[in-house]
Amino acid sequence: MTAHVVTGIGQLVTNDPTAGDGPLGVVTDAAVVVEGGRVAWVGAAREAPAADTVSDVGGACVLPGFVDSHSHIVFAGDRTAEFEARMEGRAYSAGGIRTTVAATRAADDATLAARGRRLAGEMLAQGTTTLEVKSGYGLTVADEQRILEVAAGLTDEVTFLGAHVVPAEYAGRTDDYVDLVVGEMLDACAPHARWVDVFCEDGAFDTTQGRRILEAGAARGLGVRVHAAQLGPSDGVAMAVELGAASVDHCTFLTGADVELLAGSRTVATLLPGAEFSTRQPYPDARRLLDAGATVALATDCNPGSSFTSSMPFCVAVAVREMGMTPAEAVWAATAGGARALRRDDVGRLVPGARADFVELDAPSYVHLAYRPGVPLVRRVWKAGAVVAG
Amino acid sequence: MTAHVVTGIGQLVTNDPTAGDGPLGVVTDAAVVVEGGRVAWVGAAREAPAADTVSDVGGACVLPGFVDSHSHIVFAGDRTAEFEARMEGRAYSAGGIRTTVAATRAADDATLAARGRRLAGEMLAQGTTTLEVKSGYGLTVADEQRILEVAAGLTDEVTFLGAHVVPAEYAGRTDDYVDLVVGEMLDACAPHARWVDVFCEDGAFDTTQGRRILEAGAARGLGVRVHAAQLGPSDGVAMAVELGAASVDHCTFLTGADVELLAGSRTVATLLPGAEFSTRQPYPDARRLLDAGATVALATDCNPGSSFTSSMPFCVAVAVREMGMTPAEAVWAATAGGARALRRDDVGRLVPGARADFVELDAPSYVHLAYRPGVPLVRRVWKAGAVVAG
Ligand SMILES: [Zn+2]
Ligand SMILES: [Zn+2]
Repeated sequence: MTAHVVTGIGQLVTNDPTAGDGPLGVVTDAAVVVEGGRVAWVGAAREAPAADTVSDVGGACVLPGFVDSHSHIVFAGDRTAEFEARMEGRAYSAGGIRTTVAATRAADDATLAARGRRLAGEMLAQGTTTLEVKSGYGLTVADEQRILEVAAGLTDEVTFLGAHVVPAEYAGRTDDYVDLVVGEMLDACAPHARWVDVFCEDGAFDTTQGRRILEAGAARGLGVRVHAAQLGPSDGVAMAVELGAASVDHCTFLTGADVELLAGSRTVATLLPGAEFSTRQPYPDARRLLDAGATVALATDCNPGSSFTSSMPFCVAVAVREMGMTPAEAVWAATAGGARALRRDDVGRLVPGARADFVELDAPSYVHLAYRPGVPLVRRVWKAGAVVAG
Repeated sequence: MTAHVVTGIGQLVTNDPTAGDGPLGVVTDAAVVVEGGRVAWVGAAREAPAADTVSDVGGACVLPGFVDSHSHIVFAGDRTAEFEARMEGRAYSAGGIRTTVAATRAADDATLAARGRRLAGEMLAQGTTTLEVKSGYGLTVADEQRILEVAAGLTDEVTFLGAHVVPAEYAGRTDDYVDLVVGEMLDACAPHARWVDVFCEDGAFDTTQGRRILEAGAARGLGVRVHAAQLGPSDGVAMAVELGAASVDHCTFLTGADVELLAGSRTVATLLPGAEFSTRQPYPDARRLLDAGATVALATDCNPGSSFTSSMPFCVAVAVREMGMTPAEAVWAATAGGARALRRDDVGRLVPGARADFVELDAPSYVHLAYRPGVPLVRRVWKAGAVVAG
């Protein structure tokens, strides 16, 4: 097995406090040795072991690839006009998610796959090396299943979100739709997914319905994640913690009790600032969660309705501006935090044995991700030790 | 002279209301014919005249290149740690602008030029085809002059900002420094600049001092622009309008009288959302200015202290999120608005005779600049009819 050394790293973020300074485990003038797609060694460049081949990144900052633990990128249709109307304060008779559901049902698999690949490629070019993708724009047995199959072509982190919204044909019959989800739909979908998720919010599913779906998914071996507290306080957060969810996502409106529950649990609070940015809603308070001791992740929520950004660097910058995070906390949340939200320890940090997934910035410091908002700072992306973008 | 046609434009923003729909003059399924670096024709693709060569952009949106009318990109030194401390709420004994002044004075011309070229190139790659660059980190006769010479290597839009801040060696002797600026410094600098600018703010220069400098600059043939009302209400806005300034920049704290004066003048209100983003200050109210009839431009204010973004797309997205602008208004302000702020009619719009400076997006609509914040959507940049980036 040949060894490759990446050297000339001005600032290396390992996310391993035993390997370097602070919670990010920062090593200056560093090197990383890669073997067989995994990290074999990290440390000071002058102490690096010999390797077969060498890259020099010329003083750049290198950090773990971003882990975007929340996206909805398998869909069809266009909602540009809906976004424009919202920003203009104009009424717009859109169906919201249901517009995307109709277009997605009408699209063939090849179209869905091509669009998903395009967005996944855009994410990779911006440094996202681990990506979660949800279903939820099919809402029939066949459509949810084929969306999951398309998603599985993009990532291993596939989430069944049949309970995204109640489809129009079940309007007023939410419990009948839940019967379908926990029965035939889950039978068809569970083999194609790693996770089950529910949108717990007024107008979507309550926690009684949510619990039925999550428990049915867990009984089929799926891990649990939850959308909750996006638009108002919700007992979905407490339910998520009680069910041992890997993550509860949005967390924009939390009670003090929610914060305590999260801090006392392994459930990650995944914050999605792109959604608040694009809907002009107030931002979640990351500071309060961090001060209480909760684990925070950042993700894009990339979707055509409420957050069409695919940019983890943008989420880092907004989290620092708006959510009380320091640059170091935001970078940790976008890498190691995302990995925790997916219960992964092979990504989100650069330690021996981890996947050699990392990002080389066109900047000397991770701080530039917040200091230089909007600037495309990702110079090259390495996945399993090879350059895959840039 | 050979003609080149760019066709397959799904959505063309001309900024010419007589050429298409709305204030942006939008033409769908459009083409642009370029001859000798200028626009020769715009219109529906099916009506395009014959040309010698053809590019097809495959349905992309094409818009005028961004006009970034406010930047400070000729400097040396690093203020990453100062930014990080500010975001962490930590005290930091930094000298602010004076830190950059010390580093810039110590840097040789080649270093300043290389750093300026790097940032200008970064801006071009993000779609900025016209760029203003200010001095202001020298604050001696020789240093201000050489900064202007470096800036002139980057752009034709060079601004003398000797009155950026009072240098340490003139502390408590602002009027003595103003004597230097209006005398020997202006003698040395005016031949290298198109514009004169003053930072009118508590702690910098008052309007009596500002007026002396601007009138002295105008007497030497320089156009007038002003920094005012960034940190609090200021009579600098009224002074700028009275002196016929092309632009007054920041405009974060305006009185009702200021808004009326701007609306009744040719002075553009140039808003710099990157500065508010990076300093956690409240944003200017673009809606109020637009509703009153004032002309609004957007620019980056790219500088290492208060706004290190170089991204006009980012400024568009933030202006829509935070400043009450519609996507169309923000795109106009970042293109035609910037051109007005520089008193240019050859850029900022795509009409026969204008410079063939335009941006091809990796998106079907200009709305995506706000709808997809942080995503690098600029696919190719054309300057004088040739692809220069992408
Ligand atoms: Zn979601
Ligand atoms: Zn400025």
